Amino acid sequence: MLDGRKINVGVLGATGTVGQRFISLLAEHPFFVIHALGASPRSAGKHYAKAVNWKQVRPIPSQVREIIVHECKPEHFLECEVVFSGLDADVAGDIEASFRLAELAVFSNAKNFRRDPNVPLIVPLVNPTHLSMIRQQRALHSPPLKKGFIVTNANCSTTGAVVPLAVLEKAFGPLESCIITTMQAISGAGYPGLPSFDILDNVVPYISGEEEKIEWETLKILGGIVDDDEGQKVFDMHSRQPLRVSASCNRVPVIEGHTECVSVRFARRPPPSPQQVREALQGYTSDVYTMGCPSAPRHTIFVHEEADRPQPRLDRDYQAGAGVCVGRVRQCRVLDIKFVVLANNVAIGAATSSIINAEYAAIKGEI
Amino acid sequence: MLDGRKINVGVLGATGTVGQRFISLLAEHPFFVIHALGASPRSAGKHYAKAVNWKQVRPIPSQVREIIVHECKPEHFLECEVVFSGLDADVAGDIEASFRLAELAVFSNAKNFRRDPNVPLIVPLVNPTHLSMIRQQRALHSPPLKKGFIVTNANCSTTGAVVPLAVLEKAFGPLESCIITTMQAISGAGYPGLPSFDILDNVVPYISGEEEKIEWETLKILGGIVDDDEGQKVFDMHSRQPLRVSASCNRVPVIEGHTECVSVRFARRPPPSPQQVREALQGYTSDVYTMGCPSAPRHTIFVHEEADRPQPRLDRDYQAGAGVCVGRVRQCRVLDIKFVVLANNVAIGAATSSIINAEYAAIKGEI
Amino acid sequence: MLDGRKINVGVLGATGTVGQRFISLLAEHPFFVIHALGASPRSAGKHYAKAVNWKQVRPIPSQVREIIVHECKPEHFLECEVVFSGLDADVAGDIEASFRLAELAVFSNAKNFRRDPNVPLIVPLVNPTHLSMIRQQRALHSPPLKKGFIVTNANCSTTGAVVPLAVLEKAFGPLESCIITTMQAISGAGYPGLPSFDILDNVVPYISGEEEKIEWETLKILGGIVDDDEGQKVFDMHSRQPLRVSASCNRVPVIEGHTECVSVRFARRPPPSPQQVREALQGYTSDVYTMGCPSAPRHTIFVHEEADRPQPRLDRDYQAGAGVCVGRVRQCRVLDIKFVVLANNVAIGAATSSIINAEYAAIKGEI
Amino acid sequence: MLDGRKINVGVLGATGTVGQRFISLLAEHPFFVIHALGASPRSAGKHYAKAVNWKQVRPIPSQVREIIVHECKPEHFLECEVVFSGLDADVAGDIEASFRLAELAVFSNAKNFRRDPNVPLIVPLVNPTHLSMIRQQRALHSPPLKKGFIVTNANCSTTGAVVPLAVLEKAFGPLESCIITTMQAISGAGYPGLPSFDILDNVVPYISGEEEKIEWETLKILGGIVDDDEGQKVFDMHSRQPLRVSASCNRVPVIEGHTECVSVRFARRPPPSPQQVREALQGYTSDVYTMGCPSAPRHTIFVHEEADRPQPRLDRDYQAGAGVCVGRVRQCRVLDIKFVVLANNVAIGAATSSIINAEYAAIKGEI
Repeated sequence: MLDGRKINVGVLGATGTVGQRFISLLAEHPFFVIHALGASPRSAGKHYAKAVNWKQVRPIPSQVREIIVHECKPEHFLECEVVFSGLDADVAGDIEASFRLAELAVFSNAKNFRRDPNVPLIVPLVNPTHLSMIRQQRALHSPPLKKGFIVTNANCSTTGAVVPLAVLEKAFGPLESCIITTMQAISGAGYPGLPSFDILDNVVPYISGEEEKIEWETLKILGGIVDDDEGQKVFDMHSRQPLRVSASCNRVPVIEGHTECVSVRFARRPPPSPQQVREALQGYTSDVYTMGCPSAPRHTIFVHEEADRPQPRLDRDYQAGAGVCVGRVRQCRVLDIKFVVLANNVAIGAATSSIINAEYAAIKGEI
Repeated sequence: MLDGRKINVGVLGATGTVGQRFISLLAEHPFFVIHALGASPRSAGKHYAKAVNWKQVRPIPSQVREIIVHECKPEHFLECEVVFSGLDADVAGDIEASFRLAELAVFSNAKNFRRDPNVPLIVPLVNPTHLSMIRQQRALHSPPLKKGFIVTNANCSTTGAVVPLAVLEKAFGPLESCIITTMQAISGAGYPGLPSFDILDNVVPYISGEEEKIEWETLKILGGIVDDDEGQKVFDMHSRQPLRVSASCNRVPVIEGHTECVSVRFARRPPPSPQQVREALQGYTSDVYTMGCPSAPRHTIFVHEEADRPQPRLDRDYQAGAGVCVGRVRQCRVLDIKFVVLANNVAIGAATSSIINAEYAAIKGEI
Repeated sequence: MLDGRKINVGVLGATGTVGQRFISLLAEHPFFVIHALGASPRSAGKHYAKAVNWKQVRPIPSQVREIIVHECKPEHFLECEVVFSGLDADVAGDIEASFRLAELAVFSNAKNFRRDPNVPLIVPLVNPTHLSMIRQQRALHSPPLKKGFIVTNANCSTTGAVVPLAVLEKAFGPLESCIITTMQAISGAGYPGLPSFDILDNVVPYISGEEEKIEWETLKILGGIVDDDEGQKVFDMHSRQPLRVSASCNRVPVIEGHTECVSVRFARRPPPSPQQVREALQGYTSDVYTMGCPSAPRHTIFVHEEADRPQPRLDRDYQAGAGVCVGRVRQCRVLDIKFVVLANNVAIGAATSSIINAEYAAIKGEI
Repeated sequence: MLDGRKINVGVLGATGTVGQRFISLLAEHPFFVIHALGASPRSAGKHYAKAVNWKQVRPIPSQVREIIVHECKPEHFLECEVVFSGLDADVAGDIEASFRLAELAVFSNAKNFRRDPNVPLIVPLVNPTHLSMIRQQRALHSPPLKKGFIVTNANCSTTGAVVPLAVLEKAFGPLESCIITTMQAISGAGYPGLPSFDILDNVVPYISGEEEKIEWETLKILGGIVDDDEGQKVFDMHSRQPLRVSASCNRVPVIEGHTECVSVRFARRPPPSPQQVREALQGYTSDVYTMGCPSAPRHTIFVHEEADRPQPRLDRDYQAGAGVCVGRVRQCRVLDIKFVVLANNVAIGAATSSIINAEYAAIKGEI
């Protein structure tokens, strides 16, 4: 794809949960090369293997064990072209802005810039073309930038739902409304995250800020980019056909994999049948796969026929968690169609999305 | 209430999960006295303590340990006036019919007669007045009965949802539609029920027959009784204002307590506000409590103010599981109002409902 | 017992996990009356119901909801005679010492003073007579005290093992060695305690400091008090018959109740048979029960006959968790006898022990 | 190894838990080729994909989906040289005997023949040389056999303990006694196995027959083969230096991976230090690895330095579960040394052992 070109990358928040996933995935990447690691001042100066409380099933990749961790300052990442950010929201804003200012391409899993009018919010299986917004982002930046930009990916629970929703809109025209109820894994809360005392033998029917993210991010992702009266490009938030999204978010005692029950109503009457929906979901191929992004899954959506699938424990590792699984496609007595979707919150719901976004940008020549 | 009168009762399916709950609850009852126990032929002839694989936290009540278990034949229950049935559906139909024929009052937790046009389906906190149907049930029976009848209570997941729905209809008029997503405890599947291999670190997004039960039973419970053209009483299935119910049922690794996310749309415009809904739910008092049924909860619905409640582990034992807990009452962007409801599936979702139904019937003089 | 006398008590660390248990238990106590609550400066000045993140199944007792929380300084507890300490070890030392200096009786669940040569370490079902050491504690204090003293109770995992060990020594003479392997509940780690990510679908075969506590505390508790050469009383650490204790501590995904596998070797040859051991354990009655301590369990040890008991979920609430359960008493091919013991780590393993110790002291006239 | 020779194999009990593991592993094997599948009569005649309730994370291997399942009769396996048996003990005895009689090499995970005086019980990382017993097994069979034989592997919980015990004996001479306390995963009980109601938030301190297996099998595996007075070869059951083993077995809410706390006493005085033990364990290489068995792990034992490892969730998949992990090697105050061992009960504890045993036999020319 890149004619053998290698790209040096850095990881910000390298000792955290998302950072560990970035490192696991990038260690085996065909063209991204881990070159620098950033973390908090108390980790800076240590070998990565000493700084991190490694919590992955696979051991620490050998090539990063001895890398010296730095503070998250651009001066330590000058030999990188790309940084992946797994930073917590309380520090991600300033740090990511400083890396963009230093002309680095930032692919962030944090929420801070998702609502920025010039920052694309990209679920790579859905809307990679939103990457085009980075030109305006650079141009309007003060000072204008040549190479630096920020691209965000979506919240983990948004990601799971929006993939089948996007496919349905492509196949059957706009959706009118959507009700989503999530059953989210504890790994979505990072580490230490949820105290075990709160979740063993329990459900917590609330995740702070999560429902708002699903309801807002879905519109930005499924919407288009249009020109406003002043000739600026703007995200239209699905405004040509208003889409109402209502989310209820729950935490369940599952380690990995968000399960979501989704009901949708189509604008078109009559709506598609369950069988038509199944075929559309199963048949979809993402642009990032077609274009050759190496981390893109062959099957964007796997549609289960068994009545009791997908299940997080059995299906979360399908295609290394890079696609999503859908099951139980059937009629809804209130809206039109309902189904279950499972997405791996730490793979396509987090680090994998950032990486595919960067692969796409590299292939497109933006890096 | 009954002027000191005691009523002998039997328990059918006494060694099963629901049967054990009946026995725990009835052992301390003010006017029901456990007099006979029925189970399968392989348990018959044994002392209860030998026949049962007791799985309750509280020990076997001392007064039942030595009772000899019989087969589920009416001849062994002639000194009882009431039987509670915790039988499995594969045998409940014939056995319950035979007890009714023997002029016993049968209060059943099984599904077999729930759809019978002359058998009331009663959630005691909601529609105890449906008990009136038993007169027609006796009259139309062949041969006509003097005392025998069958009353059923609802499926555990239906029960949790229908209590707040009923209160909302009483306060604000008919509902138009309702979407329910459940996260159900494993105890709802009986014993041995779910293999641990299927549910540890997992969600199973399917429970056979459960969604159909919620969607159908809700209509019978919330509907009224009307006269048909031939002068017969019939359950109207909420037909004066059609109500569409859509359910998605999931099993989660929780031992006890079904959590359900519910969204509703009211017929009336504008719909009530979240605060009005909260007040209506909190302020409701059930008829069975007012009339003095000893197992009825003082608070039909406890409305939580905290953002993260109700939770099954913390709230399932409130009022001995006889009421329901609601939380997170808020606007729904697609329908009108959404909330979370928690019901103890083995208490108000099963044995406790049967017992309150029988208490009501006794107080009403039908036993 | 106390002729109707009521005793005002305070709770230190009132908002923590152990503090919440103290409050739940004391709210219904026949002669202790909650009068003052102490917590960290950030809670001080607030109503208890506002300061606490209540995590108990039973609601906050109504009489403490409105109590104003104070900092843990003796000046706020002058109307109390007793304080119960659920403080964390990092602050318990100084605070408890200051309360003793202010002539208060301190019953502490913290580890700080357990190894103090003048502070008794009392498992109330085992060695309440060690309370006698408080006279020397007062006398040697600088300045000497009239009423103030500190009594500690044991670590939760020590408590479970030491109860049957003490009974065996009383019945069959000294033990020679003991191997203990624990499977401990997550509630033993306080709140937030163990991250769920670390314990779901997992065992953690290590608990910091826990094995040392079991190996050391057991000797102090099972040992006697003797006079040394200078006429001082000293804990003999079981030195007349050296006892070797080896512990292996594990954390398992259980909410409440520590299960421990114990093998023992007796000094006496031949050792007692399993049946003799069972009878000794079942037949034991504690002094604190005999003397009328209201929180003491009627049965110190319940001996299960079923092969698969005790189990934490089924047995941890027996006698409100104030006794211990033993099962599987059988021969050990390496030592003499092995068995399983279950103790409720948050009841007899923590707050309940402190309270019984205080009841005993009150009945003995030391308060 | 085999010069490109391929060996047709069959799997008995192919639809069960162990059978599914055999199929997953054999589908990618370098020289074993799945040729026939056997299961109960109700599965016979169906395509494997239809007959099986597949419960593995990896999908059904494509090459077995369409294989027609047969009853477990030798006539259907005539083109196989080897059969692997994942049969339940209630049927394994007769079936395995019939396959041996038909001159097939049977590698069985079932317990039925483990105690047979002519059947080797082989943990491949420990005692593959016991394979030599099959010559006598064939010779003494009636009628004598040319190729048929049965080899068993050990119980899953025995396997975990016996690997480090064997290494310790090789390095430091015979052991005198050993106390083992297990915390076993639910997958060890097969499917459906343990009801979720019994194990969520719980420990079950009993597994039927398990302690006896550990105590007996360990002696057969660690012992040698000697000639008796009549010139027959016999397993000496470690009788030259009697070894006493005491086991306590517990089930915990873990899906996969048995964790065991082990204390040992050596015959030699003084015993080795913890550091010597660590080095011996870490340095050991198994014969099956040296000889090139493709499923043998490079590291027989991985010794963790971190205080809190091994843990089942993090370590069970190390080397595809084919080795074992040891941690916390330290002195025992009662015996000499104690440590924690983790073994993957469904890999080295079951199917992987059978397969390595067969690889060894093939390389040795016995197949």
